[in-house]
Amino acid sequence: MAQIISGKEVALEIQQRLREEVAQLTVTPKLAIVQVGNREDSNVYIRMKRKFASDVGVLTDHILLPRTSNESEVIATVTSLNNDTSVHGIIVQLPFECDNKISTDKITNLVSPDKDVDGLSDLNAGKLLHGQIDGKSCFLPCTPNGCIELIKKSGIEIARTRSVVIGRSKIVGSPMAQLLLWHNSTVTIIHSHTKNPAALVREADIVVAAAGSPELVRGNWLKPGAVVIDCGITALPDPNKKSGQRLVGDVAFAECKDIAKAITPVPGGVGPMTVAMLISNTVDAAKRHLKNTSG
Amino acid sequence: MAQIISGKEVALEIQQRLREEVAQLTVTPKLAIVQVGNREDSNVYIRMKRKFASDVGVLTDHILLPRTSNESEVIATVTSLNNDTSVHGIIVQLPFECDNKISTDKITNLVSPDKDVDGLSDLNAGKLLHGQIDGKSCFLPCTPNGCIELIKKSGIEIARTRSVVIGRSKIVGSPMAQLLLWHNSTVTIIHSHTKNPAALVREADIVVAAAGSPELVRGNWLKPGAVVIDCGITALPDPNKKSGQRLVGDVAFAECKDIAKAITPVPGGVGPMTVAMLISNTVDAAKRHLKNTSG
Repeated sequence: MAQIISGKEVALEIQQRLREEVAQLTVTPKLAIVQVGNREDSNVYIRMKRKFASDVGVLTDHILLPRTSNESEVIATVTSLNNDTSVHGIIVQLPFECDNKISTDKITNLVSPDKDVDGLSDLNAGKLLHGQIDGKSCFLPCTPNGCIELIKKSGIEIARTRSVVIGRSKIVGSPMAQLLLWHNSTVTIIHSHTKNPAALVREADIVVAAAGSPELVRGNWLKPGAVVIDCGITALPDPNKKSGQRLVGDVAFAECKDIAKAITPVPGGVGPMTVAMLISNTVDAAKRHLKNTSG
Repeated sequence: MAQIISGKEVALEIQQRLREEVAQLTVTPKLAIVQVGNREDSNVYIRMKRKFASDVGVLTDHILLPRTSNESEVIATVTSLNNDTSVHGIIVQLPFECDNKISTDKITNLVSPDKDVDGLSDLNAGKLLHGQIDGKSCFLPCTPNGCIELIKKSGIEIARTRSVVIGRSKIVGSPMAQLLLWHNSTVTIIHSHTKNPAALVREADIVVAAAGSPELVRGNWLKPGAVVIDCGITALPDPNKKSGQRLVGDVAFAECKDIAKAITPVPGGVGPMTVAMLISNTVDAAKRHLKNTSG
């Protein structure tokens, strides 16, 4: 049976490291979280982010705008945070829940590049496409960067592997493929127009599933010994559960765990890493701020 | 024998179209070309660009800075062009030939996004990674965009194909892979750390070679019927030629032409298309400028 890579445990290791780093700083890092509306899933994610931040000594400022807000109000909020030198990182919690039309693209790209700790702006993405993955000149997007940490935990050497990324979203698939590429893996990007994805997955040493399609990757899709990272999370109805539902990923875990060399569970795999990398980016942003303002 | 896709002919078709478009405009598009030093290869490229521009009615301004220039002088030049409303497109001819250290990255990213007709800035690249390939919100990099035009000329439908891009440079390989991906091909990126590239190329319906490695792709690497686009150009010594040298691409043309469905020659393939797409981007920049300043 495969090594189960616990994102929860790796996130705790990162938490410990960050706590020590923050204690050494002459400034307290601060993350601003902008939310429009009151989606319950957003509330859950924001609670997790604030909890992790608080545990390592990072301040958070949760700016909650009503669903009656308009675009110019959101623009004013982000602009004011860009100009606030006490704020080191800014994230915009997506999706917006709003009565008015707000351009996600415009707001995401409004966040100042030196505070874009989600790493979702076009400028950040361009640096990634251009191979700047040292995390010094840009912020690596949180979920893909967390996946890289988990892949490393499996013990595999990424360079010279074959890998597949299933999905090409802005948040996960597209930046993930770039991170693997610049770690010198030979990457194939699989998407909804791909013929016979199973055959391609079967050639891969590393499989990152980020399609948002429950249990898409079956046991017989895998090359024996592959490292499998599951970014999917979908709630399926399950009358046997007290909650009435169970969470599943993009990978059929029960089938795959006997074939993979290492695999992430859902929940407790990629999810906690996304939060950890966000707070890690925030601490980095504060450090860069100190470096740029000192001397 | 394969269809030989003549980039020269396709570039002439584009030239004709652009000439008609420019004649309709109420402004004369203008391209500024910034060169530092006096490399002979740069001189040749600049002559070709100016010739094509002139043939369609686009003005060019060739700003030649001496090799004794320093970075702040180059910055001042680009900044002044950014602010000059009569200039619609700006390119920085690379590589610099300079006695002083000039950051290519800094200068490339200094060009205003609405004048970046080479499409080489980080911001432009990020839009590409995020799938904005309609050419409206950014400028598509010239060589990869020219390759897409040539692939279309072969008659192949790009969506649902398998493709490989050999090379991951800023200028060709990386943006090429993104263009193919967002045309819904399933793309694999091959680079110097890839094990057994031949086996991967053999699975591809579309092969774009941009490794800068003469005659790397052999006939027996190809799947019969593949479309082969050759971005390489290297001068090899050849005593049988009057010039003492011959130009070869990254593809062993003589071997591949009987196996491919369609193939580009070197020279006369991708090269002329790069110039055509640059001038096409400049005309687009002028159109956008008109649209943004009218009314």
